[in-house]
Amino acid sequence: MRNIKVVVAYDGTCYHGFQEQRGTKFQTVQGVLENRLSRLAGQEIKVFGAGRTDSGVHARGQVINFDAGDWRAPPEKVAPALNSLLPRDIAAISSIEVPAGFHARFSAAAKTYCYTVYNGRVPSPFRRLYSYHVPRSLDVDAMGEGVKKLIGNHDFAAFRALGTPVNTTVRCLMKALVRREGEIIRVELKADGFLYHMARMIAGTLIRVGLGKLSPGDMEEILESKNSLLAGPTAPARGLCLESVEYGINL
Amino acid sequence: MRNIKVVVAYDGTCYHGFQEQRGTKFQTVQGVLENRLSRLAGQEIKVFGAGRTDSGVHARGQVINFDAGDWRAPPEKVAPALNSLLPRDIAAISSIEVPAGFHARFSAAAKTYCYTVYNGRVPSPFRRLYSYHVPRSLDVDAMGEGVKKLIGNHDFAAFRALGTPVNTTVRCLMKALVRREGEIIRVELKADGFLYHMARMIAGTLIRVGLGKLSPGDMEEILESKNSLLAGPTAPARGLCLESVEYGINL
Repeated sequence: MRNIKVVVAYDGTCYHGFQEQRGTKFQTVQGVLENRLSRLAGQEIKVFGAGRTDSGVHARGQVINFDAGDWRAPPEKVAPALNSLLPRDIAAISSIEVPAGFHARFSAAAKTYCYTVYNGRVPSPFRRLYSYHVPRSLDVDAMGEGVKKLIGNHDFAAFRALGTPVNTTVRCLMKALVRREGEIIRVELKADGFLYHMARMIAGTLIRVGLGKLSPGDMEEILESKNSLLAGPTAPARGLCLESVEYGINL
Repeated sequence: MRNIKVVVAYDGTCYHGFQEQRGTKFQTVQGVLENRLSRLAGQEIKVFGAGRTDSGVHARGQVINFDAGDWRAPPEKVAPALNSLLPRDIAAISSIEVPAGFHARFSAAAKTYCYTVYNGRVPSPFRRLYSYHVPRSLDVDAMGEGVKKLIGNHDFAAFRALGTPVNTTVRCLMKALVRREGEIIRVELKADGFLYHMARMIAGTLIRVGLGKLSPGDMEEILESKNSLLAGPTAPARGLCLESVEYGINL
């Protein structure tokens, strides 16, 4: 096995999420990557992705790996070769060879997601695809205080939509902060793993804190309730971006 | 006549330019604005725009005016009312009443266009709609030196594609500068008027300067030649944005 790791960015607007779905005709990022890699390699290539981003969610630092089989391309040439075939809403940032045991998803130590809120009064045609527009002014300090309550090892069942069954809903949130840059508010979340819709439900709940409909302390109560009916609403996919994936060793 | 001025922003990606074209079915920004304003006003509204942006060109500060006729909406409510009906790639920023003599195009004293080059090595899915990707590193100092040669009152025939006949190809370029912000290079041009493709041909020629294929001094020679075969190529529409329109009086 020749295991190749590629860092991938994409505008998720036109895709039905990252992961290929059997039996549907919707276009997925994985489907496009497998198609282009298979054409380049002259053999069928199966891709593994670090994060199963939802329909409409973006990525600046998604990570994939695949077995290059007989394809002899130098690892660092895989990214530029892919870019020559990829549609312009997907780009390969870099590519390297990694040990056979490396798996983009199972080897991941942490993922960072960023949720972007556009908090300007007037709609912005240029931000519409990459942020969620909340025209009412948000209290960023309250949001920052609220998100801090979630840091650490917790059962995040309250911030989870029903989806694929999981063994445990306990996750470690290593970093969580809210920053304002003018009319843009960014919610940055780093965890060892994310439950289905977790990042978007945390963002949606924080927006309610920012609007004054919840207090920062309510974040803790909602977390402890493990009741997803108290959280949310799930903020729209277009504001979410998978920023980076970290691995234990320097991969 | 009740003359209303509206500042409009749009992502031009999906439009066949600003100006409505008789006999074609392509969607234009003017067509959408007239349709929505007519629905709001309950009567046919005809819109005048300051700049006839090309297909794919964007605007942050396009200006339109129209006669509101019998429509009694308070001027400042026109923008939010429009936004409730507009598609998300067009937004009304503000609206005020102006004197009957005001015409978005003929009263304009100056327009500012900005051409955005993305000068990163790797393609960017998030910048693809709003910039022109030049992966080879550009010499911004040479570009800045080159564009300065164009400042002032000149015959810009060399930077003009054939289009609607004009009385004169003399224009006054009041401001011209090139700035780098990381991997983004912005060419800012302010003039009393722009010839057909003028901003994009200046940008395309400057990129050749940035690549070292032309010297900054060549800009002056091309200008003086009045020969459009020496200029260009015309840089792609997606990098261009109409930033603002200025009027003599405070309108």
